[in-house]
Amino acid sequence: MNYNKITGEILDAIKVIVGEAYVITGQSDMETYAHDETEHFVFYPEVVVKPGSPEEIAQLLKLCNQHLIPVTPRGGGTGLSGGALPVAGGVLLSTERLNRIIDIDEANLQATVESGVITQVLMDTVAEKGLYYPVDPSSKGSSFIGGNIAHGSGGPRVVKYGTIREYILNLEVVLPSGDIIWTTANTLKFSSGYNLTQLLIGSEGTLGIVTKAVVKLLPYPIHSVLMWASFPDSANACAAVSAIFRAGVTPSALEFMERQVVEWVINYSSLNFSLPETAEAFLLIEVDGRDMDTILKDCEIINRVLENFGCRDVLFADTSAQKDELWRIRRHTNPAIKATATNYKKEDTVVPRAYLPQLLKGIKEIGSHYGFESLCFGHAGDGNMHVNIIQANMSDYDWEHKLNEAIVEIFELTVKLGGTISGEHGIGLVQKEYMPVKFQPAHFALWKGIKQAFDPNGILNPGKIF
Amino acid sequence: MNYNKITGEILDAIKVIVGEAYVITGQSDMETYAHDETEHFVFYPEVVVKPGSPEEIAQLLKLCNQHLIPVTPRGGGTGLSGGALPVAGGVLLSTERLNRIIDIDEANLQATVESGVITQVLMDTVAEKGLYYPVDPSSKGSSFIGGNIAHGSGGPRVVKYGTIREYILNLEVVLPSGDIIWTTANTLKFSSGYNLTQLLIGSEGTLGIVTKAVVKLLPYPIHSVLMWASFPDSANACAAVSAIFRAGVTPSALEFMERQVVEWVINYSSLNFSLPETAEAFLLIEVDGRDMDTILKDCEIINRVLENFGCRDVLFADTSAQKDELWRIRRHTNPAIKATATNYKKEDTVVPRAYLPQLLKGIKEIGSHYGFESLCFGHAGDGNMHVNIIQANMSDYDWEHKLNEAIVEIFELTVKLGGTISGEHGIGLVQKEYMPVKFQPAHFALWKGIKQAFDPNGILNPGKIF
Repeated sequence: MNYNKITGEILDAIKVIVGEAYVITGQSDMETYAHDETEHFVFYPEVVVKPGSPEEIAQLLKLCNQHLIPVTPRGGGTGLSGGALPVAGGVLLSTERLNRIIDIDEANLQATVESGVITQVLMDTVAEKGLYYPVDPSSKGSSFIGGNIAHGSGGPRVVKYGTIREYILNLEVVLPSGDIIWTTANTLKFSSGYNLTQLLIGSEGTLGIVTKAVVKLLPYPIHSVLMWASFPDSANACAAVSAIFRAGVTPSALEFMERQVVEWVINYSSLNFSLPETAEAFLLIEVDGRDMDTILKDCEIINRVLENFGCRDVLFADTSAQKDELWRIRRHTNPAIKATATNYKKEDTVVPRAYLPQLLKGIKEIGSHYGFESLCFGHAGDGNMHVNIIQANMSDYDWEHKLNEAIVEIFELTVKLGGTISGEHGIGLVQKEYMPVKFQPAHFALWKGIKQAFDPNGILNPGKIF
Repeated sequence: MNYNKITGEILDAIKVIVGEAYVITGQSDMETYAHDETEHFVFYPEVVVKPGSPEEIAQLLKLCNQHLIPVTPRGGGTGLSGGALPVAGGVLLSTERLNRIIDIDEANLQATVESGVITQVLMDTVAEKGLYYPVDPSSKGSSFIGGNIAHGSGGPRVVKYGTIREYILNLEVVLPSGDIIWTTANTLKFSSGYNLTQLLIGSEGTLGIVTKAVVKLLPYPIHSVLMWASFPDSANACAAVSAIFRAGVTPSALEFMERQVVEWVINYSSLNFSLPETAEAFLLIEVDGRDMDTILKDCEIINRVLENFGCRDVLFADTSAQKDELWRIRRHTNPAIKATATNYKKEDTVVPRAYLPQLLKGIKEIGSHYGFESLCFGHAGDGNMHVNIIQANMSDYDWEHKLNEAIVEIFELTVKLGGTISGEHGIGLVQKEYMPVKFQPAHFALWKGIKQAFDPNGILNPGKIF
């Protein structure tokens, strides 16, 4: 695609649309917008624009469409696959001013929010009314709802509550044509034409700019118990995961961590938390609900399953402080790895959950062959394993020239087990080259046709997904 | 679109592909395939073809694509919007031979099934293993999983368990090009390119022929209690619905029926079931789970809410026989109306659930104005009201010339309340003309672009949706 550069005239037109105060061109002021949380990538846009309404975005997109200027949308900038990196320059469109919670409809258990609302802010605001929005990725403190939609976000509660896909009823979207549409309806079911809401979710800003969302809410679960289970080996910890479901219990979180990950977190966060000497893997299991008796019955069932898989030590947390401490371990995994490893690469593998032991075994074998270490943790209840590849014994030359080959092997295994390349982080920039491991030319042809229908000039988030 | 007729030569080629035994051209043998459950429509195809594999379907579609022959896919033929009617002639592609349950994966709580499996057969088969597939539309005894996917089916359990959209992980689809693809992965989450699974769901056979599905299963809920609550008026019954959720309880079914509907069913099915004299509306409420104590606690909470909304009489069913009798009333609504009314038309309105009282009131007012009666029942927990328009006091002339105007008014109201034209029946043939009430030209343009990407020659299910 041949894009044009932003001329002085176009820049003036942009300033007229959004107001001069919301247009940034100074290099140092743009620094924040030149990277997200993906490795060490830096790409500067030509201009950062902060529109204040869907109407302004419509005018902006029409202008950019007319002049073939690339537009990269950006939410909280917490992405791990480079989705918000403005690789083709042009306009970086930040949704940070679209940060209003417009309505909390208690009678219908839904809320209407702008796409720049921070996930945690939405969760806290509805919680005050006894309502629950359960989609809480690790980045919830700074990620935006719009970004969560763009990546089909998950987080630890997917295992019981589902991904964001099950909580978005309707989207207001601005198209490159300048049209503003609501994609479906504010209803729990929809059988009235192609479901554009579901198509937009996970499309990583390549089809339209989401400006508002109607989200489904639940009654707040009130009670929860958190369990920390120690296992002598990863294989048993992983195998226990599917057995818990088979016993009829659906925990509200079921997280897996290897010992080394936990040790890195303990060091990084200076936690006063000791691990049993022989424990090599851990499950963090949460059971929630509105009735404590039921929760305790479920915990008993889980406990019996854990014992059957060699678990020697279960810690129960029922105070807020104890729970916070355990969740802190899980939530600090990403920053701990970022701070501790010199060179690392994150993968977001996902398979049917009973195949986790095979996946983990395969990853370790590939690691032995290539010389990398892999720190694994993730949403085991969903079969979603975050693999952090650490350079370790790989030479710099191999890291540069053979890592891709190793990653292809990991993804080939993932796909062989019925899984895919990313469960919740998206493809963005950094996973794009691996897509042919999973998908055929027919998939790419369909995706390109869909892209063509929404964005015929290819101005939206170029260089991403495919 | 200018389609071609099926020549003798093309017919011979079809017979070579699927075998002569699976090609029907005799008028009387094709009768079953010339209609579905939509009013009294009859459209004969030129030929009925019953392929036995995705590979045969791939060859068939390539042939039809090359010769511009329309192809209308058909599942169980239970549709209520005319989606399976071969309005353009050509090939009627029946998936009835694709009826194998290929695998029930107990460790991963998923099953792989062909698209011609009957919904009830899947439910029963997995139940034998203690597993639950909760998507049970009224037609479950004869509808196919493929048809359920085509319409984004719901049914009474959506209120707790979600629509089929939440149970389909991956689809094997044959494209008009002859390519056979799996749309996503066998995983609970997917963030790896546009989600074609979710796009195919609800696309009513216009984008591809679904041949296999990987479905998510749950542990079987084991226990349930069913409540039959009588109300002096519909407004209170509807208002109780959202109050139940606000009290923190999520029933596994929450069905609404007007008195007249129930009376028609009692007559039609000769049931020995008496209604309280002053009751004008009923809620059928099911609570399920794996623990009877929790269920009973939830029933108590519900009971208190019902009392607050003027409910005078609650019947509790906990034996199979009692439950079957109550469910029979709900499930016989469609056949009772079909057998009792001379002229009727079914609509499938859906709104956010707290707006049901306004919707119902508006429908009655529109009915008074035009002279029709409306028998209303439906999945009140989802805000999904099936409106059965009965000719009553409308003259034949008005029925023919003014009904559409009245339906437009109903849909305008639905849309004003944040709802849409169909919650679970689909658009098919008979709702197509009302789509502009809800959607803008920009929606149609996107849908056409998506259609173009999948089916550039427009051979798949022509004349449907838009």
